[in-house]
Amino acid sequence: MTIVLGDNQYGKSETHVVRVTKKGRTHEIKDLNVSIALAGDFADTHLTGDNSKVVPTDTQKNTIFAFAHEPMGEIEDFAIRLARHFVGEFASVYRARVAIEEQPWSRVHDHAFVSAGSEKRLAAVTCTDDGTWVVAGVADLVVLKSTGSEFHGYIKDRFTTLPETRDRIMATSMTARWRYRDTQIDWADSFGEVRRLLIETFASKHSLSLQQTLYAMGKAALEARPEVAEVRITMPNKHHFVVDLSPFGMANDNEVFYASDRPYGLIEGTITRDDAREAPMAW
Amino acid sequence: MTIVLGDNQYGKSETHVVRVTKKGRTHEIKDLNVSIALAGDFADTHLTGDNSKVVPTDTQKNTIFAFAHEPMGEIEDFAIRLARHFVGEFASVYRARVAIEEQPWSRVHDHAFVSAGSEKRLAAVTCTDDGTWVVAGVADLVVLKSTGSEFHGYIKDRFTTLPETRDRIMATSMTARWRYRDTQIDWADSFGEVRRLLIETFASKHSLSLQQTLYAMGKAALEARPEVAEVRITMPNKHHFVVDLSPFGMANDNEVFYASDRPYGLIEGTITRDDAREAPMAW
Amino acid sequence: MTIVLGDNQYGKSETHVVRVTKKGRTHEIKDLNVSIALAGDFADTHLTGDNSKVVPTDTQKNTIFAFAHEPMGEIEDFAIRLARHFVGEFASVYRARVAIEEQPWSRVHDHAFVSAGSEKRLAAVTCTDDGTWVVAGVADLVVLKSTGSEFHGYIKDRFTTLPETRDRIMATSMTARWRYRDTQIDWADSFGEVRRLLIETFASKHSLSLQQTLYAMGKAALEARPEVAEVRITMPNKHHFVVDLSPFGMANDNEVFYASDRPYGLIEGTITRDDAREAPMAW
Amino acid sequence: MTIVLGDNQYGKSETHVVRVTKKGRTHEIKDLNVSIALAGDFADTHLTGDNSKVVPTDTQKNTIFAFAHEPMGEIEDFAIRLARHFVGEFASVYRARVAIEEQPWSRVHDHAFVSAGSEKRLAAVTCTDDGTWVVAGVADLVVLKSTGSEFHGYIKDRFTTLPETRDRIMATSMTARWRYRDTQIDWADSFGEVRRLLIETFASKHSLSLQQTLYAMGKAALEARPEVAEVRITMPNKHHFVVDLSPFGMANDNEVFYASDRPYGLIEGTITRDDAREAPMAW
Repeated sequence: MTIVLGDNQYGKSETHVVRVTKKGRTHEIKDLNVSIALAGDFADTHLTGDNSKVVPTDTQKNTIFAFAHEPMGEIEDFAIRLARHFVGEFASVYRARVAIEEQPWSRVHDHAFVSAGSEKRLAAVTCTDDGTWVVAGVADLVVLKSTGSEFHGYIKDRFTTLPETRDRIMATSMTARWRYRDTQIDWADSFGEVRRLLIETFASKHSLSLQQTLYAMGKAALEARPEVAEVRITMPNKHHFVVDLSPFGMANDNEVFYASDRPYGLIEGTITRDDAREAPMAW
Repeated sequence: MTIVLGDNQYGKSETHVVRVTKKGRTHEIKDLNVSIALAGDFADTHLTGDNSKVVPTDTQKNTIFAFAHEPMGEIEDFAIRLARHFVGEFASVYRARVAIEEQPWSRVHDHAFVSAGSEKRLAAVTCTDDGTWVVAGVADLVVLKSTGSEFHGYIKDRFTTLPETRDRIMATSMTARWRYRDTQIDWADSFGEVRRLLIETFASKHSLSLQQTLYAMGKAALEARPEVAEVRITMPNKHHFVVDLSPFGMANDNEVFYASDRPYGLIEGTITRDDAREAPMAW
Repeated sequence: MTIVLGDNQYGKSETHVVRVTKKGRTHEIKDLNVSIALAGDFADTHLTGDNSKVVPTDTQKNTIFAFAHEPMGEIEDFAIRLARHFVGEFASVYRARVAIEEQPWSRVHDHAFVSAGSEKRLAAVTCTDDGTWVVAGVADLVVLKSTGSEFHGYIKDRFTTLPETRDRIMATSMTARWRYRDTQIDWADSFGEVRRLLIETFASKHSLSLQQTLYAMGKAALEARPEVAEVRITMPNKHHFVVDLSPFGMANDNEVFYASDRPYGLIEGTITRDDAREAPMAW
Repeated sequence: MTIVLGDNQYGKSETHVVRVTKKGRTHEIKDLNVSIALAGDFADTHLTGDNSKVVPTDTQKNTIFAFAHEPMGEIEDFAIRLARHFVGEFASVYRARVAIEEQPWSRVHDHAFVSAGSEKRLAAVTCTDDGTWVVAGVADLVVLKSTGSEFHGYIKDRFTTLPETRDRIMATSMTARWRYRDTQIDWADSFGEVRRLLIETFASKHSLSLQQTLYAMGKAALEARPEVAEVRITMPNKHHFVVDLSPFGMANDNEVFYASDRPYGLIEGTITRDDAREAPMAW
């Protein structure tokens, strides 16, 4: 028996870069949180502390800033440029992953902005010598529907106390990520449309379970957008319980709810095409 | 020397209530986080554990839910009703404070909503037998201007290394609270207008210091809104540092910034009217 | 009517400084989060943007680092030195507040340490030309007793549903702060003893209400430590609810609890001496 | 092309259960945060909303509480019992994962406890009809060494500015997880010993890179504990930068450091045995 090094990667996480682009008095901003992870020929640094094949994470951070000096494009473009740089420049780097979270801002003035909320736009790009995989997404997308959701017909056992319901609040803080078939994409357009379809399906599709809603959301995106190969969605079920007002002589016709923090249901699912090649490398 | 009980208060914090109001197929929601604090004749429970004058915090929570069964109005209305209830109903309660944080939602469908972000609308109402004080506000209002901000002319001493600047990013996550002169107010209109004036002043007023901006924001609100007696603003200076790209042979004309988390400047100020009576009780 | 500037202060918050002191192979570390707030003659920067009386927050940060180069002593010592510096050095500064949070570490080796947890030691020093006030404390001190706590005899009204109990879990994440009579104190000894008395009283004193426990804790500190003038304690009641296991045919004799996040009771109180002068400036 | 359902799972996350065990006046407590995820024959609920094979997450929560009524044993025991229950009881459940985070407490009295900090003990158990996999671990284990760490000899390119160092602070907030060879283990003993070895190796092993330290930690655990098949460690590099005090005429011989929050290096690695079968199912 010998002890051996298995999978490993390293990189700089959460470099928070803000890029201002000036068009006369009108400015644009990109507010990005960039994380890099490199895998490759890094056994030496683990086994002996020989760092001669290591690109320091400090250099990775500097590279982000230097690359931000050029026009950035969409976050998918910027992530591709960065990921290809590390794979192309350094023989020891076999795989580079660049994950970007974009904070959206709304313009209120030529050069002033107000935060457009807690929702984040995501891109994650993986590069090797063999290819480039692009995953886009949205995190912390908080949605709620106050009716149009049922839950019944489930298994009952000796530990079941949940009453069936034909009408409940359904709320979640969604993370949805989707993999593109290739890299010849209008990133902004695709992102906007997939996001719109996810929200629209959540809102308008009558729901018999959160799983059904999750699947319908991914299906809507895949049906409308041929450039999307696969969708992965994570939806915590942010429970809203009907408050029992009967001790106070009041009925509660699904009007007053208590929003609970923990525990919460957590639903995770993948929706794909039967002819899409799998790409575990991308995730 | 005797050991004595000084100021004290207690209550239920962070009851998270969601109220759905149905107008046919169209629903409205109010998403409130309500905290109550009561002061009064509570020496016995401290000194001997005699709870005969104590309104349990569990009952306070129930009261929030029961009151939410009636039409809520604006959060100022709801807070006033709750605060007056506790002072009016219980002889032992001399002062009730009800603080509400409202999470805004945007409609995407008849009965579906998407979170309108991390910004919160605030109301804090204090009631005693002698009066009712209403403070409104906004928390986590994140704004950024990419130019139109300078900082120079400050004291230099042996520990000064900061270079003067004629152009910097100014960004903050503001909490602003304002006290109303009385309770005969169109709460929604006042809130919307004060919020608009704060943002507009931040965006358009050229700044020589964050203090100057803070004062100008409060002044704009007081000038335009006679119903506002006093404004208190807290502004962390979310530093955006120009990245030194010269080691890479690049100029950086205020285009690439590093957004720092800590430490941060923190500016706090009050703007008031010389004829406004002070109301320390309100805060 | 004229619009005027009211109370205001500014400073650098959360400068995170770690000081290593080397005694041969044996090292000691101090891990401090330092926040400074200055008040004084700062109307000009608010009204006109004239910064000629402003000590930049960047300079305040530098001063913390420079002062950390000298032996630090206890956090109370370090805060006093910093606060006196700003009041003494700058005519425009009338009042300086320095608040320090110390992260404790446990030694595991000559020069290696493991975090001693989430609890923080606090010091807050206020200086003016007239004096120096020192407040010490502890934050995020999480304690739980699994019996020895009752709650009954409270007011019942139409919104009361809470059953009385003769045995419950009592748990809290306490912040306790205490003001010293003067500055001639053995800071480390006083801190350790007050902290010990707070925990011991929580643990051993039978409780009829969280208020009674809070008062007893402050009283124990004041009785044993003449150098303490006043104690202020904030205790969220971290509710642990007995789970109803009867649907599963099981009794639950206070054995299985559900720990709830929100809402929570919040108890705040001051315990002082009848002959102690008030010192609102200190807090 | 057909749209199809891919990998999916669901369950109840973060059920926070506290178990008190009474031995006369002396109590013991277990404070657990339990998350369950089930995979299996759940296509119907996704495709049509037919929930007839679904075990509601509410029932999963109830099951945790009911199982907590029996003696719990170590968290590995409790997780195994729960995971086997779901796989054994329900034909539609092919795989159950139960992940537990245990909050440690220190005794201060017969029945009173103080939180032993932010570090958490972990167990994650996966069950199918074919087997049971047990992973144990520790999260948020924060360690720091003030010397005994170097970093040099790395790749320099046009974006490198980091100076080489022969002496730096090395600090991390580690998550380490290790997979056991089987389920016949003295869980508490193994956990304690692996944790001790990780800390001891971090503290005493001279470091030329964080990767070298990570590997040495895993190797120490594998060498000493034959029951451990594989170790996975994630170590953020919590950078402590030497403050440049030269503008103030001071030297800084690695004494005064600024602790930075973001960005941070992130090192992830697996250490295993060449004769250990892989078990991707376990993670």
